[in-house]
Amino acid sequence: MANSKYEYVKTFEQSTTLLPDTYMTVRIDGRGFHKLSAKYKFEKPNDRHALELMNAAATAMMKELPDIDCAYGESDEFSFIFDRSSRLFERRESKILTTVVSTFTSYYIHLWSDFFADKPLSPPMPTFDGRVVLYPSSSTLRDYMSWRQVDCHINNLYNTTFWALVQNGGMDATQAEERLKGTMASEKNEILFCEFKMNYNNEADMFKKGSIIYRDCDTSSSDSQEAHAPAVFNSEQSEMSKTAKKKERRRRAQASITIEHTDIIRNEFWDQRPWLLSGPSQ
Amino acid sequence: MANSKYEYVKTFEQSTTLLPDTYMTVRIDGRGFHKLSAKYKFEKPNDRHALELMNAAATAMMKELPDIDCAYGESDEFSFIFDRSSRLFERRESKILTTVVSTFTSYYIHLWSDFFADKPLSPPMPTFDGRVVLYPSSSTLRDYMSWRQVDCHINNLYNTTFWALVQNGGMDATQAEERLKGTMASEKNEILFCEFKMNYNNEADMFKKGSIIYRDCDTSSSDSQEAHAPAVFNSEQSEMSKTAKKKERRRRAQASITIEHTDIIRNEFWDQRPWLLSGPSQ
Amino acid sequence: MANSKYEYVKTFEQSTTLLPDTYMTVRIDGRGFHKLSAKYKFEKPNDRHALELMNAAATAMMKELPDIDCAYGESDEFSFIFDRSSRLFERRESKILTTVVSTFTSYYIHLWSDFFADKPLSPPMPTFDGRVVLYPSSSTLRDYMSWRQVDCHINNLYNTTFWALVQNGGMDATQAEERLKGTMASEKNEILFCEFKMNYNNEADMFKKGSIIYRDCDTSSSDSQEAHAPAVFNSEQSEMSKTAKKKERRRRAQASITIEHTDIIRNEFWDQRPWLLSGPSQ
Amino acid sequence: MANSKYEYVKTFEQSTTLLPDTYMTVRIDGRGFHKLSAKYKFEKPNDRHALELMNAAATAMMKELPDIDCAYGESDEFSFIFDRSSRLFERRESKILTTVVSTFTSYYIHLWSDFFADKPLSPPMPTFDGRVVLYPSSSTLRDYMSWRQVDCHINNLYNTTFWALVQNGGMDATQAEERLKGTMASEKNEILFCEFKMNYNNEADMFKKGSIIYRDCDTSSSDSQEAHAPAVFNSEQSEMSKTAKKKERRRRAQASITIEHTDIIRNEFWDQRPWLLSGPSQ
Repeated sequence: MANSKYEYVKTFEQSTTLLPDTYMTVRIDGRGFHKLSAKYKFEKPNDRHALELMNAAATAMMKELPDIDCAYGESDEFSFIFDRSSRLFERRESKILTTVVSTFTSYYIHLWSDFFADKPLSPPMPTFDGRVVLYPSSSTLRDYMSWRQVDCHINNLYNTTFWALVQNGGMDATQAEERLKGTMASEKNEILFCEFKMNYNNEADMFKKGSIIYRDCDTSSSDSQEAHAPAVFNSEQSEMSKTAKKKERRRRAQASITIEHTDIIRNEFWDQRPWLLSGPSQ
Repeated sequence: MANSKYEYVKTFEQSTTLLPDTYMTVRIDGRGFHKLSAKYKFEKPNDRHALELMNAAATAMMKELPDIDCAYGESDEFSFIFDRSSRLFERRESKILTTVVSTFTSYYIHLWSDFFADKPLSPPMPTFDGRVVLYPSSSTLRDYMSWRQVDCHINNLYNTTFWALVQNGGMDATQAEERLKGTMASEKNEILFCEFKMNYNNEADMFKKGSIIYRDCDTSSSDSQEAHAPAVFNSEQSEMSKTAKKKERRRRAQASITIEHTDIIRNEFWDQRPWLLSGPSQ
Repeated sequence: MANSKYEYVKTFEQSTTLLPDTYMTVRIDGRGFHKLSAKYKFEKPNDRHALELMNAAATAMMKELPDIDCAYGESDEFSFIFDRSSRLFERRESKILTTVVSTFTSYYIHLWSDFFADKPLSPPMPTFDGRVVLYPSSSTLRDYMSWRQVDCHINNLYNTTFWALVQNGGMDATQAEERLKGTMASEKNEILFCEFKMNYNNEADMFKKGSIIYRDCDTSSSDSQEAHAPAVFNSEQSEMSKTAKKKERRRRAQASITIEHTDIIRNEFWDQRPWLLSGPSQ
Repeated sequence: MANSKYEYVKTFEQSTTLLPDTYMTVRIDGRGFHKLSAKYKFEKPNDRHALELMNAAATAMMKELPDIDCAYGESDEFSFIFDRSSRLFERRESKILTTVVSTFTSYYIHLWSDFFADKPLSPPMPTFDGRVVLYPSSSTLRDYMSWRQVDCHINNLYNTTFWALVQNGGMDATQAEERLKGTMASEKNEILFCEFKMNYNNEADMFKKGSIIYRDCDTSSSDSQEAHAPAVFNSEQSEMSKTAKKKERRRRAQASITIEHTDIIRNEFWDQRPWLLSGPSQ
């Protein structure tokens, strides 16, 4: 066939397979969202609609990709955690990464008008970049999740205080920055309380703790309990009957998806949802 | 700072840098566009609006990423070719790949209603996956481009004949497939001509040849001629003055972007636009 | 300096860092050892001297690289398992891989004459290739080790029977192969027992089970017990005092190195040597 | 078969294929050769036997791996350049890298006694690490070679002056270092000439320029001229008849291997040996 003369160029394609039996994590980040938030006049320090749009796009993704167990979002970023035993796209990195980024972007643009009916999009459009990171154990994955939630806390406390100084304290950005330079968390809390009568603890949990979205696979029926027992990762897995695979896939796709704004650093959250970190091996 | 306890998880991030002095090529592909084209009743064998939407999204991308020299699209795929000397995002693979995929997706969704005003989008949304391929020389890059255009030709001749048999020849899909199995190009041309009075040569060039989009940097002024001389790839490059870099960047951003539906396999197209494959070294 | 003009070529170097908190495994394989074993008239089916030379080279490597916890060898291959928390060469793949391959080769050549005093080496020389594989959990690593020992068993049973047929049964290679095609383990055992009065169980353990070499870190003193508690893998690790690191390094370097020819598939071996698979996280 | 239960661990193996149509370059480096040169009392600033041993090992490698076109060595390092069209081991990185490192090490140890008959090796043994770097064009490859030769020159001029100050000038190492800190090449030349009556130009070329080793494929017969025309890199290549491939392989294996100590920065060397950088594409 005429094509064959050029087909050798396919040999230049290189493909990375992600190490099996690890938690594949895709983190997407808004590109240039500082500018974007100015263009569309996002509320400061937090725009509830902008965060809810992020959550809506993340929820839509979890509906389309049942291999994602949970996701954590704050500000303009979201991390998606795949089930440790996922074989999605034979774990090809480019395919997984671009599917997640494209799906998120697609819903973000599509759903925009649901959250900002009065602010139509115009070029340059919102876009997201992304990266894959692998965590080989539940403890390192937990530490990753904790890292993002601590980041959320630190940034939000800073931003809340910064904007209080600017919006209610009559400072300009430079003065507020100067004031906050080197301050501890306790000092920021004190500024908020003493100068602005704000108790940081009363701020919305979505702002303080970000959003954890997870597939709620738990049910009381013993049948389904059995169904979500983690697959043993070995030869038997590949011989898991097609029926069983289909059944598992359906179970995941049908599980309800839950959003919470809660502490994911302590054990409690994870202890109560043991299926989230279950995996084939230790 | 409290964050430090978890920050070690950053050491699990791995980053691939794309080999310098090669043509970075990103090819994006529609995911499940067979189903999508049925859902939105795309015209067969080619839907002009769907192709124009692809071209519009590709053009918007080239405006946002001036390091892309040209792009080639057919059906639900597009290939973007970066200038050989591009240092975009320090050539980090994930960053380049996800930025291209996200930008394309974003404009595809945003511009959809310009081309399909009467067919509003609904979940599941259109999405694209993508991959990066490196070509180390202009001849291998040319062969890549030829490969895609030959692919366009083969698919389009097949589809044109297939749909003629179905739409005008009273066959169902299975019969048409059966009829075409093993036929040569000449036989398909003959079926079209003898049975349906169609001269394949008269089909639209966009269908037969796909779309090549390029940055039209050529001007007659000797000043700009000099400006787009390829940078020498060596130490001097990194010492290129900031002014020169800014000027080059502006020149690229301002160059008009042209779409053609023409042969890119023969030398003529490239010989007439020597700046497209120019690069620092041989 | 005059060098700077060319120094940009360093930017073409690409480096892969091996995922932290996984078991780095380097397996080396003799290149063309079939030919080599003919050239130097190795005894069939097993040449005790050749195996002991492999073990001697592996032992020398473990003395030079204290981050290796254990190694498993059979035939012309050896697998070296690094401690899960090893930071050797910042886990750069090329550096780890080539150091292991070069060190093994170097000792293999150097020690050759100790085992084959009457068979001096001549070109082409013995060489080894190698690869790195990562295992993210102790269970997958255990399965890797089991895989190699099962391989040893299968090959050795086959070879033992094959050479019995050839050396004592008057067959040529083709006939022996034909005879063994499709036979089960039990049938090979039977051939050995009925036709050649050989009880496979009585063969040397080194032939049947291969060689496991490990660092014998166990001591009864409570002090050292504490010393080899697995390091917690987080920020505190990097702050581990230099003294503690030096101490740990010395402890490893001084631990005696033990060779056994025993079952490593069942739990017993590992349960009795818990320090071998200890690691920072699960 | 019993093996199957564990065989899934093979899926954890990851393999990197080196980009086709680029110059694969493997640079090996002596590990800890500073200590080694002290242990075996290498002559300073250059030990002719040590360099000749490096060259002998490199020459042996080129005999075993006919895909290597040329190599450049200085001090305790050597760079091996594969033919641009080489398909050795399907261009698998680990296989190529470890084969080169192991082969070099093997010959270095084996040939040691030919050059140091009176200095028998003892543990720890000499070893080498290595890395692969790809160069996509002959100009970048030339710059790589120039980079190494400039490095040779700079180091050798420094070392020659340093050791003159120490051996003949009565300085200790610290004093000599202090004296040379910040000096230009011309000043070092002057020190050598004025204080030690040494004309640096009269030093041995092997010390000043390092060693270039290449396959001398040139012959006057028109037949062979044709034979080493670069293969066109496309589909036809893969259809190259087995006979032609065998012939090419034999031609390479039989070509004599030449060592020179000459300038490889200027064009002259390469212009006179056009087959060395010939490759399929530009």
